[in-house]
Amino acid sequence: MPEETPAEGLQLRSLVRADQVLEVFLETVTVPEPGPDEVLVRVEAAPVNPSDLGLLFGGADLTAAVVTGSAERPVLTAPIPDAAMRPLAGRVGAPMPVGNEGAGLVVAAGSSAAAQALAGKTVAVAGGAMYSQYRLVNAAACLQLPDGTPAIDGASSFINPMTVLGMVETMRMEGHTALVHTAAASNLGQMLGRLCAGEQIPLVNIVRKQADEELLRSAGAGYVCNSAAPEFAGQLTDALRETGATLAFDAVGGGSLASQILTCMEAAVSSRSASYSRYGSAVHKQVYIYGSLDRGPTQLTRTYGMAWGIGGWLLTPFLQKIGPAEVARLRSKVAAGLATTFASSYAGQLSLAGALQPDAIARYGRMATGSKFVIVPTLGPDSGRGECR
Amino acid sequence: MPEETPAEGLQLRSLVRADQVLEVFLETVTVPEPGPDEVLVRVEAAPVNPSDLGLLFGGADLTAAVVTGSAERPVLTAPIPDAAMRPLAGRVGAPMPVGNEGAGLVVAAGSSAAAQALAGKTVAVAGGAMYSQYRLVNAAACLQLPDGTPAIDGASSFINPMTVLGMVETMRMEGHTALVHTAAASNLGQMLGRLCAGEQIPLVNIVRKQADEELLRSAGAGYVCNSAAPEFAGQLTDALRETGATLAFDAVGGGSLASQILTCMEAAVSSRSASYSRYGSAVHKQVYIYGSLDRGPTQLTRTYGMAWGIGGWLLTPFLQKIGPAEVARLRSKVAAGLATTFASSYAGQLSLAGALQPDAIARYGRMATGSKFVIVPTLGPDSGRGECR
Repeated sequence: MPEETPAEGLQLRSLVRADQVLEVFLETVTVPEPGPDEVLVRVEAAPVNPSDLGLLFGGADLTAAVVTGSAERPVLTAPIPDAAMRPLAGRVGAPMPVGNEGAGLVVAAGSSAAAQALAGKTVAVAGGAMYSQYRLVNAAACLQLPDGTPAIDGASSFINPMTVLGMVETMRMEGHTALVHTAAASNLGQMLGRLCAGEQIPLVNIVRKQADEELLRSAGAGYVCNSAAPEFAGQLTDALRETGATLAFDAVGGGSLASQILTCMEAAVSSRSASYSRYGSAVHKQVYIYGSLDRGPTQLTRTYGMAWGIGGWLLTPFLQKIGPAEVARLRSKVAAGLATTFASSYAGQLSLAGALQPDAIARYGRMATGSKFVIVPTLGPDSGRGECR
Repeated sequence: MPEETPAEGLQLRSLVRADQVLEVFLETVTVPEPGPDEVLVRVEAAPVNPSDLGLLFGGADLTAAVVTGSAERPVLTAPIPDAAMRPLAGRVGAPMPVGNEGAGLVVAAGSSAAAQALAGKTVAVAGGAMYSQYRLVNAAACLQLPDGTPAIDGASSFINPMTVLGMVETMRMEGHTALVHTAAASNLGQMLGRLCAGEQIPLVNIVRKQADEELLRSAGAGYVCNSAAPEFAGQLTDALRETGATLAFDAVGGGSLASQILTCMEAAVSSRSASYSRYGSAVHKQVYIYGSLDRGPTQLTRTYGMAWGIGGWLLTPFLQKIGPAEVARLRSKVAAGLATTFASSYAGQLSLAGALQPDAIARYGRMATGSKFVIVPTLGPDSGRGECR
């Protein structure tokens, strides 16, 4: 191991205590030596994805959060409401590392050829526990970034890019030819827009704010429907009729949006059919819920015949289903498009300690358009800045 | 055509009028002559299935129904609430024949060998428009009943038997090994119970009345859970853990029952797993809604991870999916088990005119256990009796 690597490093941990208190803190952990097939990555950038927030905060009431400890080693505590505790039963008492993905420099490499080939390279990793100063990973799990690419440009190489590719692959595998996407102005939504534009896939974007509508239109989106507008149902039905979209990916989850989409899909399909069927159209209409911006219950009116489905969609099982060869093909598409189709942008950078400050949490925790942050574990506790790109 | 066949016969029709009134009446229709491959069936028994009621009454308010006309030719009218009109737009002004299935005597047959072979035989048919005195159908669509079988014993040869067989086939095709069924004391539910018992498939029955619970237990059901009981969630979870059931067929549709089933499935699966995953278990949990006893919205709490799905399930598309050879195999299973596994029972018989009387509708329209009726078009208007078997 090179001399410059310290013996210990900081790792962010999230603990659900039995007394219904969430505790997020920085733990000092030993920096391990790589085995033959492993590399040690000095993490330089790890995004805060919506998929990280659940593990990080576990449904705690962050408006009641308190920070104690020092500037270097803050400890955030927040009460967990009764309703949020039940699904957390499995993790009570076990401090969990957080951070699904990130990128950094390989500062030590095992003896195998694959590991040695990565020595000194900047790599992207989706290994979990990336909110750490150092992270030991298998060489095969690394995506080597093109020479000269800063780690921050590769920090979001997995989750969003593979998710949008997974949506398009799911569309093809299940026989659909166009897509609907909600919360469409998100980083992920904009990425999906670029991917669909490049592959000539009609995409119906659903947003709920005028500003997001304008953002997507100015980026060239062909179909943008605002769910807060009074004419939403009619506009969406028109867009669905024109695109023929019968598959939606929904980041919202709760409320009636998924059901509204199915209702409009059925209206669009029925408008092209002359005959009446008491069971509705025979065209299968599907919504996959992949996020939970609204944690409330999903309401289904079932006013769309019998050929419909709703379900959860998650990246990891999807990748397991398609198998390693197909995953490798998708990863190479990501590597080739990191600066274009699959580029991410961040509202600001945070140090590990800075990520525990309530004012920062108030910004990155709300999962609104343009509020995606990246944690930079090499920054000191007082560093961090907004609007970096 | 034999001399005894009249030139005209009665056919029940359901009309949704543009003024939001449902009109159900008996139409005089010409009795057609069979083409080469066709047979003319004198309908002797046609059940009132839940799947018939939607077409028959179209969501009209039957508590405000009025009957005019004569005893031989009654006309039922009832107002249709605003909310119920929208899905009926496609059938306004078109009087529709009703009756998905039934059985009767072949009184005339076309020239083909297949048609001639059925002359004088009692056959079961799923052709629609079975609430008619005579029905012309393709010979290939007929299921010839064993000699001596009364038509009433074969009247329900298609929908319920093929539905329960379809549920079991769906279970196998989608990789499940046990089933959950709601409204389990229905004719269909008891049939599914006999089928599962014969094929050694664990079945978890969900009912909502003590009497139905006892009925199923006395019939030998191993797992019966009462959704109205305070200990429902715990009992259901136990049953799911013991059976390993991860697929449910739900006849209720509205409310929170489907979501409760998914919640208990997740609890049962998680109880066998030691590790915590913030996305819930990786085991896919599925509910298919095939009925709509509760027409209200379906509420999903989404407290069961990401590996779940819910959707509509309908017999006809399922049969199209599995293809003719597989359908033929299932039909032969039905024919062999008509007196045993696939036997139906009825609370009473109704003439065509009798089916339009409010007191009869009040009984067969409520879709409760033990209230299944059969229409016997050969009965005179004043005939009809209850508790026939």
